[in-house]
Amino acid sequence: MNTELTWADPRVSAELCEVREQQPLVHCLTNIVVAQFTANALLAVGASPAMVENAKESAEFAVAAAAVLVNLGTLSAEREVAMRAAAGAAHDYGRPWVLDPVGVGALAPRTAFAGELLELHPAVVRGNASEVMNLAGAEFGGRGVDSLAESDEAIGSATFVARACDCVVAVSGKVDFVTDGTDVVEVPGGSSMLTRITGSGCALGALVAAFAAVDDNVLFATAAASAVLKAAGERAARGSPGLGTFTVALIDALDALARHAKPFSA
Amino acid sequence: MNTELTWADPRVSAELCEVREQQPLVHCLTNIVVAQFTANALLAVGASPAMVENAKESAEFAVAAAAVLVNLGTLSAEREVAMRAAAGAAHDYGRPWVLDPVGVGALAPRTAFAGELLELHPAVVRGNASEVMNLAGAEFGGRGVDSLAESDEAIGSATFVARACDCVVAVSGKVDFVTDGTDVVEVPGGSSMLTRITGSGCALGALVAAFAAVDDNVLFATAAASAVLKAAGERAARGSPGLGTFTVALIDALDALARHAKPFSA
Amino acid sequence: MNTELTWADPRVSAELCEVREQQPLVHCLTNIVVAQFTANALLAVGASPAMVENAKESAEFAVAAAAVLVNLGTLSAEREVAMRAAAGAAHDYGRPWVLDPVGVGALAPRTAFAGELLELHPAVVRGNASEVMNLAGAEFGGRGVDSLAESDEAIGSATFVARACDCVVAVSGKVDFVTDGTDVVEVPGGSSMLTRITGSGCALGALVAAFAAVDDNVLFATAAASAVLKAAGERAARGSPGLGTFTVALIDALDALARHAKPFSA
Repeated sequence: MNTELTWADPRVSAELCEVREQQPLVHCLTNIVVAQFTANALLAVGASPAMVENAKESAEFAVAAAAVLVNLGTLSAEREVAMRAAAGAAHDYGRPWVLDPVGVGALAPRTAFAGELLELHPAVVRGNASEVMNLAGAEFGGRGVDSLAESDEAIGSATFVARACDCVVAVSGKVDFVTDGTDVVEVPGGSSMLTRITGSGCALGALVAAFAAVDDNVLFATAAASAVLKAAGERAARGSPGLGTFTVALIDALDALARHAKPFSA
Repeated sequence: MNTELTWADPRVSAELCEVREQQPLVHCLTNIVVAQFTANALLAVGASPAMVENAKESAEFAVAAAAVLVNLGTLSAEREVAMRAAAGAAHDYGRPWVLDPVGVGALAPRTAFAGELLELHPAVVRGNASEVMNLAGAEFGGRGVDSLAESDEAIGSATFVARACDCVVAVSGKVDFVTDGTDVVEVPGGSSMLTRITGSGCALGALVAAFAAVDDNVLFATAAASAVLKAAGERAARGSPGLGTFTVALIDALDALARHAKPFSA
Repeated sequence: MNTELTWADPRVSAELCEVREQQPLVHCLTNIVVAQFTANALLAVGASPAMVENAKESAEFAVAAAAVLVNLGTLSAEREVAMRAAAGAAHDYGRPWVLDPVGVGALAPRTAFAGELLELHPAVVRGNASEVMNLAGAEFGGRGVDSLAESDEAIGSATFVARACDCVVAVSGKVDFVTDGTDVVEVPGGSSMLTRITGSGCALGALVAAFAAVDDNVLFATAAASAVLKAAGERAARGSPGLGTFTVALIDALDALARHAKPFSA
């Protein structure tokens, strides 16, 4: 069944309100390009980011955290070991963890590593169309870290991965598609500027982790995080003369949405 | 004896003026989340940042620098070796070095490593309340990289560490407390927005290093750096609609304070 | 022969237009301080950045990319291996690669490593005066990552390196000098604010890679990239109250220049 979700739905605001109030500690193993932006996006919605990426500490910290993000950008030998340990510990101790398979498909060793991580039971996989199609075993062309395919082309692959790995899969694009293998939630909207700055997809992975930390309904939590980022992107695009200002305005918009988020009253 | 220091004191402006004129080279071993922000904060006050974090080069570079910052965020095996070498060389050659014990208390290996670094004679330790209390051997709860304790709860621990290690200890919070184990300088003011962006505490550690490079009175230099950051935070908060704009305005404010800083005329 | 190039020359706009249309994939091995800024600068001009810095993947990715950037800031043991592999693969497969010798001269191991990389046939070397003079074997004083020398002092060294290594050498400064060992192109303009934020030089290295990816005339491509950054710096400086705003406005300006760039009609 396909449904649609946007910021206009009061349950999205309620979910964001929950994040702001619970301030989940999100352990991010992420890359050197987007680490600051990711931390600021999490702080803007009221979550508490922490980046611990060495092999000695990452498992211990995964257990202390409310959720874990594993983002494969700028992978290094040490981060690889740390990620395996953190993902394993997160699963063992019941912390939801999110896999962001940056660059999968473009690079053979990374594709293999992502396959290995999939066996450690991520709660959510969030990627672009190329990455999700490649995770499903297809040989679709990614180009570096950008997708050449549209998000709707990846729905079959997303469904396949969701069923095979018993997780939620989110495909980012003009419309975001989020599926648990049975239902599909479509999240329209956003701004094309989101694809022309670095880190918006990576920040979404972190927001998904924060939302999954406060809601056992992982399908809804993931779609709600997408809806929040898309709403923030729309607001930020208005009045931004260029991509530099947009990057700053996106954090302002997440901050404003979180400050005004209200609990759900049915 | 407790005294108070703020930007209103002309000696703070004079200290900042000294930094701008001497342009101290500050060697930062810091983390992937805040490296850019830290470099831009140092540049804004006229200091010269350089990040060298590998084991082969860090000791040589510590000697070339006027001060060294060792920040434990996103610790890695190689950074650990590089930090030990840089801190040791800094002490041997009389360069002040600042320890920012990010995450100490939350993670056992890191707490042990920080204890080891304390033996290499930092000129200043700058942390939040949880971190400083944990350095003092207490088991106070940090939560990731944020403190659950208020800064005034850590004054006893700060005094203990300052005396045990013969250094200055700065505890950041609503009021910053800076002590050499005998005197305490309180630095009030700032903005709550400083705690809701990533990197303001880490940037303060770097500013402390820059100030300690130009003033042998390390207690005063440390408090002056706090006073400058708090003044910049106040200015940046005015008129900032959200956290994104605040981050940018904070660098503008440091830049403006430094440009207008005046030498002291008694 | 010395010639001058600025944004006023319609061939510069045409070159930028070409980048925007071809969207070259630029593989950046760069440092933790400037990675985000570099990626956003590339995205602003329409190029596609990707950062892959581990030893297992970097050679494979160099071949997939249209150009490669090797920037020596925050060198690590693993990045060193990855850089050697990427530069070697880029040369073997005919991809232009750019060496940004950050910190060369200030650090002996890095100077030696840069010398080794020069043997892997970079298409372009871009650095400040101190770095280029030190590459030429001179013992000119760099200070950390900043140059103490003016760019025109390095013209002799630049010419020497260009001839010895059969590459283009660009020296950044108040005037940028770009030479292939025979001709020299001078690129005046820009803003002093460019030297007071972190990453503008490093971003230029990445832009040079993007421009070299779309034009076999590497001397012109390199000078055109300089001219674009200087024009963006001038625009960004206007109306920026401080360095924080300037950093944001610089990305806006690159974005605006790229959107309005026009093909050349002789």
